[in-house]
Amino acid sequence: MEVVPKKRLELYSGRSHPELAGAIAQHLGVGLGHANITAFANGEIHCRFGESVRGADVFVVQTHAGAVNDWVFEHCVMIDAAKRASAKRITAVCPYYGYSRQDRKAEGREPITAKLVANMLRVAGADRIVSVDLHSGQIQGFFDGPFDHLTAGRVLVEYLERNLAYPPVVVAPDAGRLRVAERYAQYLDAELASVYKKRARGQVRALGVMGAKEVEGRHCVLIDDMIDTAGTIVAAAEILMATGASEVWAMATHALLSDPAVDRLKNSAITKVVVTDTVPLASEKRIDKIEVLSVAPVIADAIDAVFEDTSVSEIFDGENQP
Amino acid sequence: MEVVPKKRLELYSGRSHPELAGAIAQHLGVGLGHANITAFANGEIHCRFGESVRGADVFVVQTHAGAVNDWVFEHCVMIDAAKRASAKRITAVCPYYGYSRQDRKAEGREPITAKLVANMLRVAGADRIVSVDLHSGQIQGFFDGPFDHLTAGRVLVEYLERNLAYPPVVVAPDAGRLRVAERYAQYLDAELASVYKKRARGQVRALGVMGAKEVEGRHCVLIDDMIDTAGTIVAAAEILMATGASEVWAMATHALLSDPAVDRLKNSAITKVVVTDTVPLASEKRIDKIEVLSVAPVIADAIDAVFEDTSVSEIFDGENQP
Amino acid sequence: MEVVPKKRLELYSGRSHPELAGAIAQHLGVGLGHANITAFANGEIHCRFGESVRGADVFVVQTHAGAVNDWVFEHCVMIDAAKRASAKRITAVCPYYGYSRQDRKAEGREPITAKLVANMLRVAGADRIVSVDLHSGQIQGFFDGPFDHLTAGRVLVEYLERNLAYPPVVVAPDAGRLRVAERYAQYLDAELASVYKKRARGQVRALGVMGAKEVEGRHCVLIDDMIDTAGTIVAAAEILMATGASEVWAMATHALLSDPAVDRLKNSAITKVVVTDTVPLASEKRIDKIEVLSVAPVIADAIDAVFEDTSVSEIFDGENQP
Amino acid sequence: MEVVPKKRLELYSGRSHPELAGAIAQHLGVGLGHANITAFANGEIHCRFGESVRGADVFVVQTHAGAVNDWVFEHCVMIDAAKRASAKRITAVCPYYGYSRQDRKAEGREPITAKLVANMLRVAGADRIVSVDLHSGQIQGFFDGPFDHLTAGRVLVEYLERNLAYPPVVVAPDAGRLRVAERYAQYLDAELASVYKKRARGQVRALGVMGAKEVEGRHCVLIDDMIDTAGTIVAAAEILMATGASEVWAMATHALLSDPAVDRLKNSAITKVVVTDTVPLASEKRIDKIEVLSVAPVIADAIDAVFEDTSVSEIFDGENQP
Amino acid sequence: MEVVPKKRLELYSGRSHPELAGAIAQHLGVGLGHANITAFANGEIHCRFGESVRGADVFVVQTHAGAVNDWVFEHCVMIDAAKRASAKRITAVCPYYGYSRQDRKAEGREPITAKLVANMLRVAGADRIVSVDLHSGQIQGFFDGPFDHLTAGRVLVEYLERNLAYPPVVVAPDAGRLRVAERYAQYLDAELASVYKKRARGQVRALGVMGAKEVEGRHCVLIDDMIDTAGTIVAAAEILMATGASEVWAMATHALLSDPAVDRLKNSAITKVVVTDTVPLASEKRIDKIEVLSVAPVIADAIDAVFEDTSVSEIFDGENQP
Amino acid sequence: MEVVPKKRLELYSGRSHPELAGAIAQHLGVGLGHANITAFANGEIHCRFGESVRGADVFVVQTHAGAVNDWVFEHCVMIDAAKRASAKRITAVCPYYGYSRQDRKAEGREPITAKLVANMLRVAGADRIVSVDLHSGQIQGFFDGPFDHLTAGRVLVEYLERNLAYPPVVVAPDAGRLRVAERYAQYLDAELASVYKKRARGQVRALGVMGAKEVEGRHCVLIDDMIDTAGTIVAAAEILMATGASEVWAMATHALLSDPAVDRLKNSAITKVVVTDTVPLASEKRIDKIEVLSVAPVIADAIDAVFEDTSVSEIFDGENQP
Repeated sequence: MEVVPKKRLELYSGRSHPELAGAIAQHLGVGLGHANITAFANGEIHCRFGESVRGADVFVVQTHAGAVNDWVFEHCVMIDAAKRASAKRITAVCPYYGYSRQDRKAEGREPITAKLVANMLRVAGADRIVSVDLHSGQIQGFFDGPFDHLTAGRVLVEYLERNLAYPPVVVAPDAGRLRVAERYAQYLDAELASVYKKRARGQVRALGVMGAKEVEGRHCVLIDDMIDTAGTIVAAAEILMATGASEVWAMATHALLSDPAVDRLKNSAITKVVVTDTVPLASEKRIDKIEVLSVAPVIADAIDAVFEDTSVSEIFDGENQP
Repeated sequence: MEVVPKKRLELYSGRSHPELAGAIAQHLGVGLGHANITAFANGEIHCRFGESVRGADVFVVQTHAGAVNDWVFEHCVMIDAAKRASAKRITAVCPYYGYSRQDRKAEGREPITAKLVANMLRVAGADRIVSVDLHSGQIQGFFDGPFDHLTAGRVLVEYLERNLAYPPVVVAPDAGRLRVAERYAQYLDAELASVYKKRARGQVRALGVMGAKEVEGRHCVLIDDMIDTAGTIVAAAEILMATGASEVWAMATHALLSDPAVDRLKNSAITKVVVTDTVPLASEKRIDKIEVLSVAPVIADAIDAVFEDTSVSEIFDGENQP
Repeated sequence: MEVVPKKRLELYSGRSHPELAGAIAQHLGVGLGHANITAFANGEIHCRFGESVRGADVFVVQTHAGAVNDWVFEHCVMIDAAKRASAKRITAVCPYYGYSRQDRKAEGREPITAKLVANMLRVAGADRIVSVDLHSGQIQGFFDGPFDHLTAGRVLVEYLERNLAYPPVVVAPDAGRLRVAERYAQYLDAELASVYKKRARGQVRALGVMGAKEVEGRHCVLIDDMIDTAGTIVAAAEILMATGASEVWAMATHALLSDPAVDRLKNSAITKVVVTDTVPLASEKRIDKIEVLSVAPVIADAIDAVFEDTSVSEIFDGENQP
Repeated sequence: MEVVPKKRLELYSGRSHPELAGAIAQHLGVGLGHANITAFANGEIHCRFGESVRGADVFVVQTHAGAVNDWVFEHCVMIDAAKRASAKRITAVCPYYGYSRQDRKAEGREPITAKLVANMLRVAGADRIVSVDLHSGQIQGFFDGPFDHLTAGRVLVEYLERNLAYPPVVVAPDAGRLRVAERYAQYLDAELASVYKKRARGQVRALGVMGAKEVEGRHCVLIDDMIDTAGTIVAAAEILMATGASEVWAMATHALLSDPAVDRLKNSAITKVVVTDTVPLASEKRIDKIEVLSVAPVIADAIDAVFEDTSVSEIFDGENQP
Repeated sequence: MEVVPKKRLELYSGRSHPELAGAIAQHLGVGLGHANITAFANGEIHCRFGESVRGADVFVVQTHAGAVNDWVFEHCVMIDAAKRASAKRITAVCPYYGYSRQDRKAEGREPITAKLVANMLRVAGADRIVSVDLHSGQIQGFFDGPFDHLTAGRVLVEYLERNLAYPPVVVAPDAGRLRVAERYAQYLDAELASVYKKRARGQVRALGVMGAKEVEGRHCVLIDDMIDTAGTIVAAAEILMATGASEVWAMATHALLSDPAVDRLKNSAITKVVVTDTVPLASEKRIDKIEVLSVAPVIADAIDAVFEDTSVSEIFDGENQP
Repeated sequence: MEVVPKKRLELYSGRSHPELAGAIAQHLGVGLGHANITAFANGEIHCRFGESVRGADVFVVQTHAGAVNDWVFEHCVMIDAAKRASAKRITAVCPYYGYSRQDRKAEGREPITAKLVANMLRVAGADRIVSVDLHSGQIQGFFDGPFDHLTAGRVLVEYLERNLAYPPVVVAPDAGRLRVAERYAQYLDAELASVYKKRARGQVRALGVMGAKEVEGRHCVLIDDMIDTAGTIVAAAEILMATGASEVWAMATHALLSDPAVDRLKNSAITKVVVTDTVPLASEKRIDKIEVLSVAPVIADAIDAVFEDTSVSEIFDGENQP
């Protein structure tokens, strides 16, 4: 009994960010499957796929922002269901990867929760992970299978190229982000600067600007991977303005915008905040100065490459990417 | 270089039910460790143990009720931290084990989330699990290590013996709980009855009482492992009253009491609801007819047995237990 | 070098029940492969596949009844051979799943052997399990891969519908089987009753009937998942007759019929025993009152669904099944 | 809470060879634990330890001869029970290791069952294996933990030294055993010879003797790891006699003596068969020419060394051992 | 979205033996992929595949001879890269399998490094291993997946048949190789002899010849799996000549020829050394008496069989092979 | 049979850096065990422990620099031997952790070799890792067990405090090291600057200095985790001098000093190179301007803490450490 098998792509969305999943589906030209997710009165999540996934190449999209623990758990529940329903291969698509800042022990007796998330996805049954602009690239090594690390860099850079007459000064909002800022600066042929912390022992934790000379009288763009409570980026913008910057924009892939981020941004010197849609943005948070670009095409291209076994390396994170 | 090692017991509590953990610590005569758990603005949980756990026998107490996904996740985070901080052995103490009803695929394309929870605890680093009155004993088999399954049966039975002049009629609130009810009835030398569902195909899903004759004019006690939204138990009480019961009590180990359980119980024919403290009960839910018994001594005895490698089999679930 | 692959189905049978495997093969329209199994003089089993299984979708059929340890071991040996011979995917087909009653620790210091069987099949190399009417559905959770749980319910129910003018009273032979009996009763629109145990502490372990009123003067059908030594079911039939039943049939998926089951059934009040062929029935055990229905079509349909990646959910166990 | 732990040794025996386990216990000066093993009517094995094994160093003795599949399975069942009952460490003591000749694929599409046995013991919960005179030393590598490989060599050699005035000619019964025979010959300062097979392609599979000159007029001792059906060893003895040997003894660690071994030995030219008690010898098989030496002291010393963390290397297999 | 998948074969070579990989590629009619392997100044190896391997059936050829640790490590690095780049299946092709003589503990407190190599290849991501003439067949059992064990036996035997008028005496260079020599002798219908060690206790470790009579005046061929420093084989040749052999050849699959092997061979009584190209032979080692046969066709056939899921059992090691 | 166990510390050294291991042993007041490591003529490594390690707490010290693949492999071989010899716990002590810069995929189709190293150590049998100043802290997450990450920060800082009258300007040699440099600067209350790369797209990869103003006329100290070929650090020193620095020192934990590092340093503007002894420094590389500090006390303290289950958090890497 011999049969030529067909491959089927099935795309499911958790409840964290259905809009993004829908946009990805549209780009792929496929329909979103029916995952039938409900929460019982006691908070337990249930899911039951509406279609057979036997032998299918299943992609489960869930961004780990908002009610992060619920969404990671739900992601695992969906993957477990797909595994037990005989999916051929399961890819966990995490536009924003949860707990990505907890990627090492900064102190003793701490967890490495970004590793725990990878372990959970694996033990639930994920064969592969797709994510965008990880807080650190080393998180790829937390998973012993293929991990496609995409970048929104081109999307962000094209925005700058479209909206600015000449290159801005690229600024890292803290010391740990200088390498990424440097990559943007090189790609844009731009000047580079960095905000940093000083004099911790002497109790005062003040900020300084390295490259102050470059900043004076110039349009600065702060580059970060995420904006959470916006404390760092707003403080960085302040010291840039104090140093003589003519204008400050902020740019980041992941717009967590946890309270009081929106208030801080609204009241800050930052005139434009450019982010992507890896994280859903509630309408009350959509203030004028926030511009949201979509990574749906990038993720859709990656899913297509995974499904079709083709290579589209320009969407993947790498040294030659912004 | 030779050393005679000492064993140290370290007891930590997650944030789901610190009162119970405190009571357990008191029974054990030890202090609760400082887990220093916080949630960041974006919902991510962080923990850092305040004491060294190197070489210690660590017990992490967390009940999986309330914000169940948060608490299961937090449980894993704490276990991961203990593992990386060189604990010698880690026991996950789950007074209520999350997702215990999702212990099999009732339909196709469903997850088995009770197994997922066991997998998560294991991959986080748990060497052993302790839990109370699992929805089904088979959940022990979901974990390939020691799983101490305790029962609150004696605590509940002693309450009945103390408060009733003669044995009540023990009633299973649905067909699936008859085996447990039978065990209680045998232990109490009591009559047995069961509520059941009928005629599903002909659209109407009515309830019936098996053992109606025994119920008439008698004091009935419904026995369940948990009361969640109280729909089942209240409906069972109604049909028992309609069948002629003189009074109905409800008894269960886990008082999830999700909305609208308390309203339902308040307005129901049930005159007393006897539960334990495996799940925290908010003060606004503590209505008069609810009686809460403590399982802290049972769990403390089990932890002591695990730590000291002694055997206290009467606290463990088994055929000869109520 | 690019090739369009073909999938091949290879079906092998262990020595426990070649008739059933043959019937399955016939339904599938494929030939049974040559497994060349022999036992050496010292009892060690050897197998060597007669055909190449490279890249094939291999199904190994073995029912775990009779010389249960030999057959489970032989199952593992065949799976190990298939794995090392480069099968693409291996499905362990267990019409009767061995040790399914040892699915939890009923007492301390006991094994959970149903979990051990799952572990053995996995470590031998099984990617998936197919079984029929497990003693408890939770056994699916003992295996961290797809586990297709089939039901013989429809086969049994159709027999009743064909052979009885109107619905019988469905009776659970003990408290633990009431949920399954309830499902049959709902499906058949029939009355429900249950046998149960009473007064264990006061030394006497007598049986009682719940729903005695329904039983009087009626044709009763006891529903169980298996008949082993027939002690439970014969005792249940006796008390049903003593309660006034007009006739008692027994119905079960798995006819283990260990000694002295056949004698007991022969001498019992039961007038008909309806079982399936998941377990081979020696000719000397084929007494008149035993009726054997075949599950070969059900298993063949499941194998076909697995091989073709199609969905035939009506053959799988679920809440809407009898 | 700090405690100085005590280590407890618990020794349990499966049902395959209780006499040997008893002798080991006596040498150790400990009592055998109560494993309470029973087989149900359908052949399923059950075990329940009579004492607490919490925190104990548990040794489970089971020789894999006789009903080999039952005994390997029972071994796993006991280990699973010990694991779930919180044993601190579990050692599988296999005086004869089952399926040790199936240690590689001699042909394609075969299993490697000796590896399967190791996998089963591991997945059941064994932390360590102790065995005697494996068919091939490479089996140690099938288990990724400590594997104490003991040898009965000294016991056998001492017998020769006690019972023979001067060294015999040591003979390998087939080509595969020459290395071991060489080790014995070196240790005894004896001459060496080997039986071998010839001319397979030309249909005839005759035997030859290498070292025929040494054999003439001499007392030969055939050395093997096991005697199963005795076909090989009896044929070897015949050709040795035909070659002019004055007398032939056979010596082996494992006396499987499967039918028709005893008849063959009785009718053979072999005048003495020296074996050990790793395998139980039914009384009807205890013919005069068979001499049984005990390995209980060797195994007891190894268990003591494992428990006490001491080193007794002369009992372990190695290049400098006979 | 349904697609009929295509399978792609991608063949990569490590740096240990590119000539052999090239010959294999040629036989297969495919090109070698670009692995871009470099070593940094500090000795760390880096590799980056030049083509996409997404979904491909990847074969990584690396022989573990020469700088054995570097090459095993590089093999793992390449496999890890292929795994993370989403190869569908990865086969480690090891013409010579490293550390194959360290396949058991010859003494206590030793590693089993052949098992460690299998563990490393697995943890790096290999799904399958292909190797030629393992030192012991049991090494197959060190890997819990398909392990295709090829033999160069036919290649070597055909050389003898082509170059000798009548069968030589086949001689095992030490006791441990007699079984393999026996297989050659049977296949060639040849006489058999063996060199062996004697009198170790009495300090002197002399060599002897079993089958001396057969050797006298005859052309002998020593058969080994590998020639490393050539100490064993040269000593064996000497004693054969001393025993009266007319001529001695040596034949082995793996020509490690570590110093001072070539000098020893050059100065020895051996007149011809027939080996294969599983190991690269530096030009300065290619002395006249060494004849190198190619196993590239054997390995290419095996790769083709693996890729195409066909069976070519005559190239695989087995009892009916020379 | 009850025994109070004793713990034994056994310390072994691989061949990569015996001087450091000896110094650690001296600090601990224990002797180094005899590992008896040899390399065969074909390059294969062998080890056999000279003492029993049964039940011991074994620490295997091996720095992964020099012949890095040999040393990592040897590390694994030693750990495998300890595991099979029944060590109770095995700690891999890696003063310099191999391949630590290959900790993420900088481009597609690359390995993550730092993860591979962790996987190898784990599969060999390591229970725990101890290392110093990892290239990135995330490498801790590559191992799912305790990973003690030590820092040489205090040792380096104390040198500065001892040898400089007032704080230098701390300079990151490239953008990726700014966070670590910032930590040093905060700890020393020093000014901060960074070298960075610019204009990559426009072909020219020039260097710039951020914080140039601070550098002018000042004593600068470049801080890195390792100096490999010294290309980065020497180029950084040049541009610092060109920017007006009065003097430049370089400071790093790991002195790989691969060719042509020493020549570059000798000819560079750097006047002092302060490193530690995590990597052995050949005498010909010990030029005057290189100062070597010892981390032996730090590692010895960590081993002592691990063995004694005490906590010495000031030696572990963390946010409050330099």
